[in-house]
Amino acid sequence: MNSFKIALAQFSPDTGNLTANAEKMLEQANEAKKQNADIIVFPELSTVGYPAEDLLLRPSLNKRTKQAFEKLAEVKDIVLVFGFVNQTEDGQRYNSAAVMKDGQVLGIYNKQNLPNYSVFDEKRYFSEGHQHLVFEYLGHKFGVLICEDAWSLPTVQQLAQLNVETALVLNASPYEVGKPQHRIETMSALAKQMHLNLVYCNQVGGQDDLIFDGTSFVIAKDGQVIVQASSFKEELHIAEYDVAEKAFKVGTIMPVLDTMAEIYQSLVMATRDYVQRSGFSGVILGLSGGIDSALTLAIAADAIGPEKVQAVMMPYTYTAQISVEDAAEQAKNMGVTFGIADISPVVSGFMQTLFPFFGNAPADATEENLQARSRGTLLMALSNKFGNLVLSTGNKSELAVGYCTLYGDMVGGYAVLKDVYKTIVFELAKYRNSISDKPVIPERVITRPPSAELRPDQTDQDSLPAYDLLDAILYAYIEEDMSQDDIIAKGFDAETVAKVIRLVDSNEYKRRQGAIGPRISSRAFSRERRYPIVNGWKPGI
Amino acid sequence: MNSFKIALAQFSPDTGNLTANAEKMLEQANEAKKQNADIIVFPELSTVGYPAEDLLLRPSLNKRTKQAFEKLAEVKDIVLVFGFVNQTEDGQRYNSAAVMKDGQVLGIYNKQNLPNYSVFDEKRYFSEGHQHLVFEYLGHKFGVLICEDAWSLPTVQQLAQLNVETALVLNASPYEVGKPQHRIETMSALAKQMHLNLVYCNQVGGQDDLIFDGTSFVIAKDGQVIVQASSFKEELHIAEYDVAEKAFKVGTIMPVLDTMAEIYQSLVMATRDYVQRSGFSGVILGLSGGIDSALTLAIAADAIGPEKVQAVMMPYTYTAQISVEDAAEQAKNMGVTFGIADISPVVSGFMQTLFPFFGNAPADATEENLQARSRGTLLMALSNKFGNLVLSTGNKSELAVGYCTLYGDMVGGYAVLKDVYKTIVFELAKYRNSISDKPVIPERVITRPPSAELRPDQTDQDSLPAYDLLDAILYAYIEEDMSQDDIIAKGFDAETVAKVIRLVDSNEYKRRQGAIGPRISSRAFSRERRYPIVNGWKPGI
Repeated sequence: MNSFKIALAQFSPDTGNLTANAEKMLEQANEAKKQNADIIVFPELSTVGYPAEDLLLRPSLNKRTKQAFEKLAEVKDIVLVFGFVNQTEDGQRYNSAAVMKDGQVLGIYNKQNLPNYSVFDEKRYFSEGHQHLVFEYLGHKFGVLICEDAWSLPTVQQLAQLNVETALVLNASPYEVGKPQHRIETMSALAKQMHLNLVYCNQVGGQDDLIFDGTSFVIAKDGQVIVQASSFKEELHIAEYDVAEKAFKVGTIMPVLDTMAEIYQSLVMATRDYVQRSGFSGVILGLSGGIDSALTLAIAADAIGPEKVQAVMMPYTYTAQISVEDAAEQAKNMGVTFGIADISPVVSGFMQTLFPFFGNAPADATEENLQARSRGTLLMALSNKFGNLVLSTGNKSELAVGYCTLYGDMVGGYAVLKDVYKTIVFELAKYRNSISDKPVIPERVITRPPSAELRPDQTDQDSLPAYDLLDAILYAYIEEDMSQDDIIAKGFDAETVAKVIRLVDSNEYKRRQGAIGPRISSRAFSRERRYPIVNGWKPGI
Repeated sequence: MNSFKIALAQFSPDTGNLTANAEKMLEQANEAKKQNADIIVFPELSTVGYPAEDLLLRPSLNKRTKQAFEKLAEVKDIVLVFGFVNQTEDGQRYNSAAVMKDGQVLGIYNKQNLPNYSVFDEKRYFSEGHQHLVFEYLGHKFGVLICEDAWSLPTVQQLAQLNVETALVLNASPYEVGKPQHRIETMSALAKQMHLNLVYCNQVGGQDDLIFDGTSFVIAKDGQVIVQASSFKEELHIAEYDVAEKAFKVGTIMPVLDTMAEIYQSLVMATRDYVQRSGFSGVILGLSGGIDSALTLAIAADAIGPEKVQAVMMPYTYTAQISVEDAAEQAKNMGVTFGIADISPVVSGFMQTLFPFFGNAPADATEENLQARSRGTLLMALSNKFGNLVLSTGNKSELAVGYCTLYGDMVGGYAVLKDVYKTIVFELAKYRNSISDKPVIPERVITRPPSAELRPDQTDQDSLPAYDLLDAILYAYIEEDMSQDDIIAKGFDAETVAKVIRLVDSNEYKRRQGAIGPRISSRAFSRERRYPIVNGWKPGI
């Protein structure tokens, strides 16, 4: 034999649906066989999907896993390396990989390093393995690693010391901005240092708030990238190993994305997967004429097709005419259904019912929230009647400081921009305009000062610092965990910093009731930043 | 010396506020000294409160802990045993106890058993300790354990083998129905088995969705209860040890509560702590004339006083006259502010705005949800205008099957009955009526068939099985993790079981956006039952 081939199945599991996943893995194995692959590698926990959370605790998981093994045993003449939950007779549960050929399990590897920080909770579900798995096949010595294992130098060192030539690495490594490139660079340095070929197969697809970008790769022991899959797509790639040369041959290398393209595509995939997997036929969203809803509209239309997107403009007294015009133009540019729903009768109805309580009390945020909640309820009514999922359009900057109305503009099943700072929203809008023949988001939507239009002549900057300033403070506080004192010491205005931090701290209750949305940062609210709602922590040091 | 005294400070920390907690601990130490105590024991992590979640990851925690130590160093002539986060120089973080006298730290114990299941996430924050702490004082040999340690037989055995006479156990053990009694029985058996006196001090108070009941105790090595604190109250108790007799003297033993009293008081404390600690001056809730809102009203009034409770009845076409009468009577019985807000103008406003979209489409759940959302928005408007926190009134049975409207009856900051099944709601209503001179909840509210009153002559049982049947299925599925097949095998109607499970599975998205509420069961939604929203798990096996 002069060479052998390894397939990487960059696949998007249906979380919790072991039957469907096993079927799909079987198809991929057959496709890999057609391309003469000798081995096929799947992502971490490929049978059940990642993260399956407390579904992993259901008593029948073991039975379902056995059924998946039976299905996979139908594949002949190719070695399958796939992820599964290994429940042993002593009651332990492991995050494991099986090496299977012709229905025979040749070896099982239990993950040794269980991440339990950031978005990860693996110690809730799994015990740690303590042993490497090494197997010889086709005259070549393979080892197996699972995700976090590859980031533990001692673990990889031990494997390398067993004279392993190639490590098969099964992953469910979540996306964040720049992560695909960072992962490749880190693994390239590792391969070189350990003199080890790395076959790295990553899960792809959106799972609730987590995005898996895929971007699987093969890196040779000299650090060179041999094969690289696309981000945000299911793909099957083949890496060929030349036995005489003792080296992988350079194969398909898909291009790396620029930052804005990467973020945009991540949001498109996450939105598509959420909508389709939760069984909705389409989406609906409120178009305000502002940039957040404009960008959300573009992402939605790109994700599921404009014919499945309904946009509604809901004007009131304070809505500028140009907002209505811009909303209509966005909808037309994107080719989505567009309607206008004047909220005046609703707001009047509320004020009539509330008059005996409010009397002549002066207007305050209450009346602004009423407008937002009238809109939210209208969107939900249209959703209930016609079956479209409501997308909410708020961004991370707003959610951070609570510049949004609970049960108002926060309604919806998926908050597309939840983890996207406002300054990035502008960049993404420009990026989206740059990739079509003519701009889909009218220029003045990008250049106009942002406004909630809830009172006359309002702009966001009446209540908040300018967005570049706000985002810089938020980034320091949230992503970098800096204290109030330290942020002020960096040169920001003390009063502004104190106000922003007070707003972040006091709006945890709002965020907790908000829709989930795709995580693209290294510190997303909720799953990753878990703060008590009631707490007496004082800012300062 | 003929005897010595140990104080148990069953105290309610302000989570994250180390300054306030240290001040309060200092006061308690001074109070204990007045009662001639030689040692005072505080709960687990008493300086920072439990669970402080990701506040524990903030870089300044160490500085704040040092400040708390400095404050506590002011106490002289009594040994303090308290909980704190021990960040060591090698970068490890431990859940620890300090033994301090006259400002000198005599010893530090790092918790050895870190719970990372159910509501617990301690492995996210802490490393495991590997060593016991034993100290002699007053001629007596003491050991220290922290919460989960006391439930690990090997850990307690090792301590007992060090000839320890009394273990000081620091706890933040969350409440669930029957837990206070269960804890005492387990610890009594343990004390006897290990021949070890147990001084068990537990945190008390509500922290978001978790309730800490307190119910601290001292149990002698023969298993006898020596001292027992109340549940759901801050208390300081003293246990006296007779040196000659080598035994604790029986002291104050507060009575154990009956189950309904226990649950009721747990909800009252949790509600009070949430409202007060989130800084609200009062609460508002919608009274429907039904039993859920009636019970929530009683709990709220008992928690913070009727003068701080505002109740609003929001009738519509389908509201029965007796519902309005019963709501008014409940409000009068409880002595709370009561108002009526007819929602007709609001619903008309919505229908007018929606007509161009709906045309003559037949009425369905959309119109029912509109009524619920009109009410939710009205409550939020009254909350915004007058500053009262909205309590939501849905129960666990409804939330489980999604028989509730997101942004409608689900609005609110705290969902008092979130973890209380409907059948228990009835029991609690009867219990509450039994403890006042005359019933506060009108008899017919308890006996009438429950109805959402969202269409003519509707009752809950049009859509759902009878509540005793529904709750039995829900309990088997949620609390007992039984599969659909197993529940059917118990004798329940197959179609009913399948429907209930389908509803539970498909309503995760609703629950995820609901308000938090006090946990009283062994499987509360959200913090304890963590399911993906999008998943393909199929019921059956």
